[in-house]
Amino acid sequence: MHRDRFYTLSASCPDQVGIIACVTGFIAEHKGWILESSFHSDEMTEQRAARYFIRIEVKADSLPFMLTEFRERFRPIAESLQMDWRINDSAVKKRVVLMVSKQEHCLYDLLARWQSKELDIEIPCVISNHDTFKGFVEWHGIPFHHVPVTAETKVQAFAEVQRLFEESHGDTMVLARYMQILSPELCAAHPGKILNIHHSFLPSFVGAKPYHQAYQRGVKLIGATCHYVTADLDQGPIIEQDVIRIDHSDSPNDMVRYGKDIEKTVLARGLRYHLEDRVLTHGNKTVVFR
Amino acid sequence: MHRDRFYTLSASCPDQVGIIACVTGFIAEHKGWILESSFHSDEMTEQRAARYFIRIEVKADSLPFMLTEFRERFRPIAESLQMDWRINDSAVKKRVVLMVSKQEHCLYDLLARWQSKELDIEIPCVISNHDTFKGFVEWHGIPFHHVPVTAETKVQAFAEVQRLFEESHGDTMVLARYMQILSPELCAAHPGKILNIHHSFLPSFVGAKPYHQAYQRGVKLIGATCHYVTADLDQGPIIEQDVIRIDHSDSPNDMVRYGKDIEKTVLARGLRYHLEDRVLTHGNKTVVFR
Amino acid sequence: MHRDRFYTLSASCPDQVGIIACVTGFIAEHKGWILESSFHSDEMTEQRAARYFIRIEVKADSLPFMLTEFRERFRPIAESLQMDWRINDSAVKKRVVLMVSKQEHCLYDLLARWQSKELDIEIPCVISNHDTFKGFVEWHGIPFHHVPVTAETKVQAFAEVQRLFEESHGDTMVLARYMQILSPELCAAHPGKILNIHHSFLPSFVGAKPYHQAYQRGVKLIGATCHYVTADLDQGPIIEQDVIRIDHSDSPNDMVRYGKDIEKTVLARGLRYHLEDRVLTHGNKTVVFR
Amino acid sequence: MHRDRFYTLSASCPDQVGIIACVTGFIAEHKGWILESSFHSDEMTEQRAARYFIRIEVKADSLPFMLTEFRERFRPIAESLQMDWRINDSAVKKRVVLMVSKQEHCLYDLLARWQSKELDIEIPCVISNHDTFKGFVEWHGIPFHHVPVTAETKVQAFAEVQRLFEESHGDTMVLARYMQILSPELCAAHPGKILNIHHSFLPSFVGAKPYHQAYQRGVKLIGATCHYVTADLDQGPIIEQDVIRIDHSDSPNDMVRYGKDIEKTVLARGLRYHLEDRVLTHGNKTVVFR
Repeated sequence: MHRDRFYTLSASCPDQVGIIACVTGFIAEHKGWILESSFHSDEMTEQRAARYFIRIEVKADSLPFMLTEFRERFRPIAESLQMDWRINDSAVKKRVVLMVSKQEHCLYDLLARWQSKELDIEIPCVISNHDTFKGFVEWHGIPFHHVPVTAETKVQAFAEVQRLFEESHGDTMVLARYMQILSPELCAAHPGKILNIHHSFLPSFVGAKPYHQAYQRGVKLIGATCHYVTADLDQGPIIEQDVIRIDHSDSPNDMVRYGKDIEKTVLARGLRYHLEDRVLTHGNKTVVFR
Repeated sequence: MHRDRFYTLSASCPDQVGIIACVTGFIAEHKGWILESSFHSDEMTEQRAARYFIRIEVKADSLPFMLTEFRERFRPIAESLQMDWRINDSAVKKRVVLMVSKQEHCLYDLLARWQSKELDIEIPCVISNHDTFKGFVEWHGIPFHHVPVTAETKVQAFAEVQRLFEESHGDTMVLARYMQILSPELCAAHPGKILNIHHSFLPSFVGAKPYHQAYQRGVKLIGATCHYVTADLDQGPIIEQDVIRIDHSDSPNDMVRYGKDIEKTVLARGLRYHLEDRVLTHGNKTVVFR
Repeated sequence: MHRDRFYTLSASCPDQVGIIACVTGFIAEHKGWILESSFHSDEMTEQRAARYFIRIEVKADSLPFMLTEFRERFRPIAESLQMDWRINDSAVKKRVVLMVSKQEHCLYDLLARWQSKELDIEIPCVISNHDTFKGFVEWHGIPFHHVPVTAETKVQAFAEVQRLFEESHGDTMVLARYMQILSPELCAAHPGKILNIHHSFLPSFVGAKPYHQAYQRGVKLIGATCHYVTADLDQGPIIEQDVIRIDHSDSPNDMVRYGKDIEKTVLARGLRYHLEDRVLTHGNKTVVFR
Repeated sequence: MHRDRFYTLSASCPDQVGIIACVTGFIAEHKGWILESSFHSDEMTEQRAARYFIRIEVKADSLPFMLTEFRERFRPIAESLQMDWRINDSAVKKRVVLMVSKQEHCLYDLLARWQSKELDIEIPCVISNHDTFKGFVEWHGIPFHHVPVTAETKVQAFAEVQRLFEESHGDTMVLARYMQILSPELCAAHPGKILNIHHSFLPSFVGAKPYHQAYQRGVKLIGATCHYVTADLDQGPIIEQDVIRIDHSDSPNDMVRYGKDIEKTVLARGLRYHLEDRVLTHGNKTVVFR
């Protein structure tokens, strides 16, 4: 993370000769100072054509114009390369809505990172299907919305969640051990903007009680997976994963406890990559420029 | 961690034939149900005689007597084996005093574990040389003491810290990124009761600014070390360590950020081992029965 | 690993009060010096009754009798506790038959450990469905048997493998990246004696081409699993697992390459645990006293 | 690693605006297809000016000329940017001379990788101060030179090693657990070409018997470090490091055994980075484009 204000261009396009030269040529022409740059060529497979991925950080005050003009001037280049692209300003904080239930570890962890500005974001609100953390969240000066979810009220509840997210101009929604399955409508409304932390090393142990499944199978490591939420449960593009060693003496309850340490760090890492525009999706996979 | 109430016997003694038989024979004779047991024989070296280490958890209600009587009846055996020993009751919560400065990560992490009862302890108070976290700590219903430390007031300040620790009947003091060096008097008063988290993989990078030292040397992993505090700075017995991978693109500030994730998990693991009587010291080393 | 000759008793039995006292009492009575001891109580679940697991190393020359007499004298105790048990002598080398195909990494790795006596075993022979490594194996002075396997000859081929294993008095068979599925007869004939290394973090990616499956799913870590072979493909009790980090820039071929480093270390660790009688099975799970 | 033949340009130069545009513009102008590219800007510190690092793989047959002409045409650009640079052809195998003593693990490991073409190199010869592995090396068809080293013959011995290295047109010398300290003359003659594997996590435990030092200090992880050899013992630029967990039950001999697994994988990774021109040095540090 650089101290100076910078713009982050992230893009993907069909692979061809000269992409880097074209993009960095444009930046150099305007005396743009590149702080960091990453490129990746995803080789053609039977399923996919070859595609090129780009992430560039340019020092803001090295350019003779602001972001609006950058966008305008860069557009013809992007179009000629058939790019999917976006450019963000490090001075504009991302707005992250947290979704929680009754478990504390990811919530405490994210709020600690937020209050120390390690995560330099706005948290417009926290939404929960329980009121367990109302006082804790509000003490931090963050609005808390209690939106109960029952089998009968599910549709309305998630309509309300979606309304709150949009009303607070959220850029990103984080399921920080939120124990409800989002409605397909909500998933579809914000693709690539909703992150979940799943408490297993996917694709092992999809669904409920993964630590109990892990205990039954007798695995020697347990893990956690941060992924984008799609309508298919636990099947979205994986952003980050990690594992921790266990042994025969660990009960499912011990695994739950160990797992929390992995869950919160994997979620925090995945969220950081996402917020810094380091994650580009390609079908059901991700390119993560760490 | 077992759900039933249990007693934890931890002990060390000179190695000889028959120690386990003797100790477990006593327990079996009284129908004591052993939930967990660990033994270790530390081989003789030029520096040290062979020594035996023991940790046993006995289900409390399997025994026909309470802890006081256990202690009385066991004493002759312990004496015949020349044991250093202690026995603790899982129903009696340990009292842990936290020492913090201006960094948030270990404090938030430990309070999250405390409030969810993952760490089943009492926190009689938090002591700090700054008042940064006064509101946060008090919101949790925990007393907060601001004890400033300057070069001139050092002696009185640590006398005050010692007074507060003893007044609150603390069992353990945790330096949760407390940025002052304790007085030799305080270290000497509570040997084996004060835990520190040092932000390097000791013995590398002793002292100040270890991440900057690591950056200068160009190492590819950085670490953290939880150890008992002794009068020798960063030289006490090591309880737990871990590392995280970095690379050439990481600045000292990035390392500080990565390091926090290692520091808090290493401290939490080390503290748990200590609180569950899993750590037995032997000279400047530890036996940790995980 | 201790330098002095020792006996390793490993056992499991239904849990009850006094097991350790009973077993170690017997050893102490004969002045047996315990070098290392491990105990584990597997809590009752819906699927299983509570069971107790034991592993004890006794210094051979501390006892007044040899292994045959130990067995005789210990038998009544074992019977009264309804034990499954075995006791092995560190002076008697285990006989390990290696099965390989065309990949070199596990074979070179195991032979390096064998020739330096890090693995203190006999290798009576190497069996392969190809003759690729005939010269290399024979240079080490180890007999090499080429037993081709085709769809038509499968039954006879594995009958031949079984004959060779039994003729060479093998204790353990190691599938060191052997690319054929053993016959059910062979699996059934030597339960708990055949180890395989599977090139995925089971239960993910069972069956063929796991690295290609991992690539398709976009996971961020790949792994390997050492397990006992049973008639159910890749479903046997897991002994050891580990993982390694990959990213979007890694092709399936890169994963194959990275995977080899994990496969050989996981297999070597799992094999060592097995040979040192550290692995006790319980249903489809293992207790591994590391 | 790409299957098609490619050229690898690696370079560093003082940082300024437009470097990437300039270099990739040259490549694009000649229709060069970039397979992989990495860039790093090392920020200015008190010790060092800002410097830029580049590594680019270009598909060989996408260019209208061969490497000689590439070098000629690129030279003016490189000079204008004050570059240190080199460009290598994936079709030209690097020549790696191995230095060993009596330990087998790194030698077996490297020869396994070589014979399977995982390491696509030439090994013109193996040099050793013992004749332990003469037969093994020669069985692989590789010349073996026994060059004994004693206190008296040290100067001549390393003059002979240097002669053998140069006579065999070595690109890289690998100290694969070679237990002698090279002469300053040899170090000076081939800077950045000699790799060593040190059996500790440097800067901890410099010098002899690091595992015994680690045992004395009671650390909970041990490691290994692959670094370039300079005249200062164990002080050269670090290429790669890793660690493995140990505990109180591990003797120095156990650590030696665990350490071997880390040493061989760290050496193999570091060597691969070096051979693929992924390592660029900057003072006493390295940039490693993995």
